[in-house]
Amino acid sequence: MPDDRSPGAAGPFLRAARGLPTDHTPVWFMRQAGRTLPEYRKVRERWTLLEICRLPDVCAEVTLQPMRRMPLDAAVMFGDIMLPLAGVGVALDIVEKVGPVIEEPIRDLAGVARLRDLEPEQDVAPVLEAVRIVRRELESERAVLGFAGAPFTLASYLVEGKPTRDFARTKALMLGATDVWDALMSRLARIATQFLRANVAAGADAVQLFDSWVGALSVADYVRFVQPYTRRIFADLAGLGVPMVHFGTGTAHLLDAMATDGGTVMGLDWRVPLDDAWERVETAAGRPLGVQGNLDPAALFAPVDAVEREAEDVLRRAAGRPGHVFNLGHGLLPATPLSNIERVVDFVHEKSAELRGELRAETSAQAVAV
Amino acid sequence: MPDDRSPGAAGPFLRAARGLPTDHTPVWFMRQAGRTLPEYRKVRERWTLLEICRLPDVCAEVTLQPMRRMPLDAAVMFGDIMLPLAGVGVALDIVEKVGPVIEEPIRDLAGVARLRDLEPEQDVAPVLEAVRIVRRELESERAVLGFAGAPFTLASYLVEGKPTRDFARTKALMLGATDVWDALMSRLARIATQFLRANVAAGADAVQLFDSWVGALSVADYVRFVQPYTRRIFADLAGLGVPMVHFGTGTAHLLDAMATDGGTVMGLDWRVPLDDAWERVETAAGRPLGVQGNLDPAALFAPVDAVEREAEDVLRRAAGRPGHVFNLGHGLLPATPLSNIERVVDFVHEKSAELRGELRAETSAQAVAV
Repeated sequence: MPDDRSPGAAGPFLRAARGLPTDHTPVWFMRQAGRTLPEYRKVRERWTLLEICRLPDVCAEVTLQPMRRMPLDAAVMFGDIMLPLAGVGVALDIVEKVGPVIEEPIRDLAGVARLRDLEPEQDVAPVLEAVRIVRRELESERAVLGFAGAPFTLASYLVEGKPTRDFARTKALMLGATDVWDALMSRLARIATQFLRANVAAGADAVQLFDSWVGALSVADYVRFVQPYTRRIFADLAGLGVPMVHFGTGTAHLLDAMATDGGTVMGLDWRVPLDDAWERVETAAGRPLGVQGNLDPAALFAPVDAVEREAEDVLRRAAGRPGHVFNLGHGLLPATPLSNIERVVDFVHEKSAELRGELRAETSAQAVAV
Repeated sequence: MPDDRSPGAAGPFLRAARGLPTDHTPVWFMRQAGRTLPEYRKVRERWTLLEICRLPDVCAEVTLQPMRRMPLDAAVMFGDIMLPLAGVGVALDIVEKVGPVIEEPIRDLAGVARLRDLEPEQDVAPVLEAVRIVRRELESERAVLGFAGAPFTLASYLVEGKPTRDFARTKALMLGATDVWDALMSRLARIATQFLRANVAAGADAVQLFDSWVGALSVADYVRFVQPYTRRIFADLAGLGVPMVHFGTGTAHLLDAMATDGGTVMGLDWRVPLDDAWERVETAAGRPLGVQGNLDPAALFAPVDAVEREAEDVLRRAAGRPGHVFNLGHGLLPATPLSNIERVVDFVHEKSAELRGELRAETSAQAVAV
């Protein structure tokens, strides 16, 4: 019974992620920890991203910063999807305004053999300690989210050696050296599983698998070269009983396939209308699914009335139905005006409560009419 | 009667683009002129991209280089979608490995007012002269394609001032200053129309509208903020009677909307299965449409047997049905192995002829059986 085990179980995020009704729609933002807050920038004057992740107190502090400033319903751990790989000894750096850079890209079986299984309490001890601190310090009704990079997105960094727009080397390997691809993806799926399992053991109430770049693949390539590994991860974690968010961007063509992979909440980017996409993923999965999303992060740069209009559109499409977690369609952009971020949190809470009221009034009016 | 006017009318590209049967599937590649050929790199040692576009003979030569090397069925003019904007006086540069950089980004009505209508024979005379040369020099059965940037993609460069991944300023303007957006998009639609019309007058047998980045928009934003302007362009050009390709990437969620905009051939990127997408766009449009695509440009980095397998998959999905033009799902990547590019052209011709033979044999076998 995860509801007894988890201190955050009673809160709006976990209720919504499990398809239960809530008084308001819960909200959190990908990249809410780090990137935009002035108090975070101050921390970054002293330490790099990777340094912060090796200092549990600082990592917990950065994770909690947005929680103090705003009534967000979930805290996502500060970190980077490359952390578990650094943990198993991959020499890498997170370069400012570039992204992950790998010293020795992996393109053959010998390279894959250098990747070993993750032993979380040794390899990523500070991250897990930070999870424990955050879970202890945060009010029980606010959830703590652990996250991991999905095999395809991690593989793309390892193979290319740096961020890419075209994934040419990754796809060439995938199509031309299927044995190397299978070995690499199998290993990355195990590492992601081991990392997320340890996050939950340390106190994370839910997990999110980030396959940020998987939208670069065709449907056929997703089904053949990615889906088997993603399915293993969710199958391995299912027994933990925590909500599992499956997230990607540019996935309009992949949603039907992804919906069958075992995640319990589908992350939706802003490109797809939330109502249509929700129906699509549930039809494809043949079971109820939660959805998370899907305001365009770029919309937060518009004047506040336009921001509210866009956020309201997302809420109206969700129509107060249990199972919706409000979020952006991708991470907060670094230069996002802070006042708009803060306004969206309040707006989602207020407007979603109001819409639920309207819905109840309509239902009773109908009952009276009958 | 465009078929009488146009010397290329009898060739496989124009026949397929008009939905007529051909002996083999025609093939050309976006970015086939420039980027990958050694003979092009030699030209670039002497002139920049923009300089080449101001020298009709050199521009024509670069356009013809891939046509001499490979039996491609269409020549796409060498150039850049920013050329008409440079023509109306926008100060810009095409920076190597970056893309278009605008000196004074346009973000208000005063900025839009600086954009004037295009007077093609004055503003882009060398481009049009290059079209005339190419049409004269090329065999009549090989088509010449003119192209223009679509309003959204052009607007994104003008507003951001440079290539962007997130389109934050563009979308903020679109959502927050609808009067500026409307003025900008209306002007860009007129410029694209004027440019493409002049290309056809100079001898282009078909045109392609590149909305390369439109996939960054939600369905609702596309319908409200882009579709009206795209429709104007196709409506204005329809009377010319030339095939009009409507191209974008990451458009899996937009194809139904785009299919109704007036283009006669839908460009498909590699993410969507060609057969499903073809059915979808024709259903949405309620009329027969051609399709162009959709091999993954990154697949050309794989070993040649994998490349052939992927190309054959595209041909089998098209199933020899009239109306398919073989292409990549986006432009050739600069480092693509030349031998694979050359092989795909031959493979598409050979295999598509062979598949047509199989299809005919099946049909006669069925006829005998009946």
